[in-house]
Amino acid sequence: MSVTEFEIIRKYFKDGFPQRSEVILGVGDDAALCQVFPDQALAISMDTLVENVHFPHNTSPYDLGYKSLAVNLSDLAAMGATPAWMTLALTCPLADEFWLTAFRQGLLELAEQAQISLIGGDLTQGPLTVTIQVAGWVAPHLALRRNAAQPGDKIYVTGYLGDAGLGLASLQQRIILIQSANKDYLERRLTRPTPRLREGISLLGISKCAIDLSDGLAADLSHLLEASQVGATLFLNQLPLSQSLKESVDLQTAWELALSAGDDYELCFTVSPDKEEQLNMALPHSQLTCIGEIDHKLGLRLIPDNQSVLKSTGYQHFMQST
Amino acid sequence: MSVTEFEIIRKYFKDGFPQRSEVILGVGDDAALCQVFPDQALAISMDTLVENVHFPHNTSPYDLGYKSLAVNLSDLAAMGATPAWMTLALTCPLADEFWLTAFRQGLLELAEQAQISLIGGDLTQGPLTVTIQVAGWVAPHLALRRNAAQPGDKIYVTGYLGDAGLGLASLQQRIILIQSANKDYLERRLTRPTPRLREGISLLGISKCAIDLSDGLAADLSHLLEASQVGATLFLNQLPLSQSLKESVDLQTAWELALSAGDDYELCFTVSPDKEEQLNMALPHSQLTCIGEIDHKLGLRLIPDNQSVLKSTGYQHFMQST
Repeated sequence: MSVTEFEIIRKYFKDGFPQRSEVILGVGDDAALCQVFPDQALAISMDTLVENVHFPHNTSPYDLGYKSLAVNLSDLAAMGATPAWMTLALTCPLADEFWLTAFRQGLLELAEQAQISLIGGDLTQGPLTVTIQVAGWVAPHLALRRNAAQPGDKIYVTGYLGDAGLGLASLQQRIILIQSANKDYLERRLTRPTPRLREGISLLGISKCAIDLSDGLAADLSHLLEASQVGATLFLNQLPLSQSLKESVDLQTAWELALSAGDDYELCFTVSPDKEEQLNMALPHSQLTCIGEIDHKLGLRLIPDNQSVLKSTGYQHFMQST
Repeated sequence: MSVTEFEIIRKYFKDGFPQRSEVILGVGDDAALCQVFPDQALAISMDTLVENVHFPHNTSPYDLGYKSLAVNLSDLAAMGATPAWMTLALTCPLADEFWLTAFRQGLLELAEQAQISLIGGDLTQGPLTVTIQVAGWVAPHLALRRNAAQPGDKIYVTGYLGDAGLGLASLQQRIILIQSANKDYLERRLTRPTPRLREGISLLGISKCAIDLSDGLAADLSHLLEASQVGATLFLNQLPLSQSLKESVDLQTAWELALSAGDDYELCFTVSPDKEEQLNMALPHSQLTCIGEIDHKLGLRLIPDNQSVLKSTGYQHFMQST
């Protein structure tokens, strides 16, 4: 029997633990919500990056510091939360001062951009692993949840999709990108993702439902559809693809990457048609693309009906183990 | 050059990150304090346990689940905080359902005792590592800090010291404990430490200064003395030693373990003499022992002056690396 990360979480860590009144949203969304004021909640999320699982051995410590925080901030963005503070659990094999200096610089660059404090954590010796927990403020009645999509809503994404997947293939030398500008851009999209904090915060009151794209659009959108008990139609021709991606691979491969490769850390969110004008006014300088529509019929349909682009359903931990 | 965990934290992760007004106590105490109400703060702490570093390979998953939470709750106890919620980052090599079931049970046992919610986290594949972050409520003006010891204060500890150190030696078969009752008791003190939450909360308003004993009394008390810029005299004859410890090793070894072995997770706190009566009334059923006194002269003095009991200064990560 193969067991996925999500099944394990559901089976062992979702239910049965003490319930507290201040915890208004627990395991299962991009972040938990703990209500501390009548109209303010803390959105709390935690992500771990393990060497050779989430990043290759030769990842620069600067990039690792940056990305460890980026993937966590992306979860806050997907709730519409404003970053407040973080804790860092760093496990590393050696106390290498050059490594630590670069790691700190990468972490600090993004911490300054996001204005998030580092309040504590733990430093231990062992296999290289970075766990960061972030907390941010959001009004609980406005927070963007996974379970709030409605039939008729339009589905949007920020930025471009599939870049990070091709960047990984390039870093792992599974593909040779001839144009160095494309190679640099695509690899950087993997190593330095931009958490869409400004977009997430701007969506409050316009959208009710969002998820960040860490495991790939098809997989992450499916989580959103399942939580909302709705289905969706996606228009492949509308998927936003960067110039670098289009120049580097054929369209079929680009769609595969956009749907199934992870690590883009863009936001996918839904908006009712009467809010689309407000959306464009709120974020005039952001790249926002309508890629489909929520409907009643469960499941995910593609137009054109090109199922072969769904090569895998996103990164799943533990699928190979029993 | 050898670098300790504390030096790395001070050099790379203490300063330079964005400051936020709600963070009233950052890196360097048992927990950080984030003020969210005028008179309520969140105490936040995070601890990682790495296989073969913090626990032997053959540790039972039940014990690991229990202890991963216990060491974190101990930090809340050392602030006088009431547990509220936690997040769990679990990295494990395989999705072994027997292992996960037992790990969950150990975690849940203590979570129920402490009435702490599990609100989220991350599950990843890799070398066995458990990081837990806990949050608890405490009135910020009453929170027990490391830097609040005053000359003339009495130094107290909860429970017995040194048990966990001998328990580890027994588990690692560095010592053979003939009496099975002693063996069971001492090993259990290592694998199932009792976070002194009730004691920590009861100390609010009586003590101002506490630390939990994870690295050993000599090392942890030294952190407290350094933070408070004071010194202390310890009376070796007053160190609380369990019957099992005294039956298993000679007095010199027992003192060494009490001072220098880690993992006891008892509280060490200071009380001004005029509060001692109130202390005994507040905790009539707790084992509390006065072991010394804070004074002006910096450093730690032992009576009798038996420096040989200070075999090591507590567990220090990275001391062997450069």
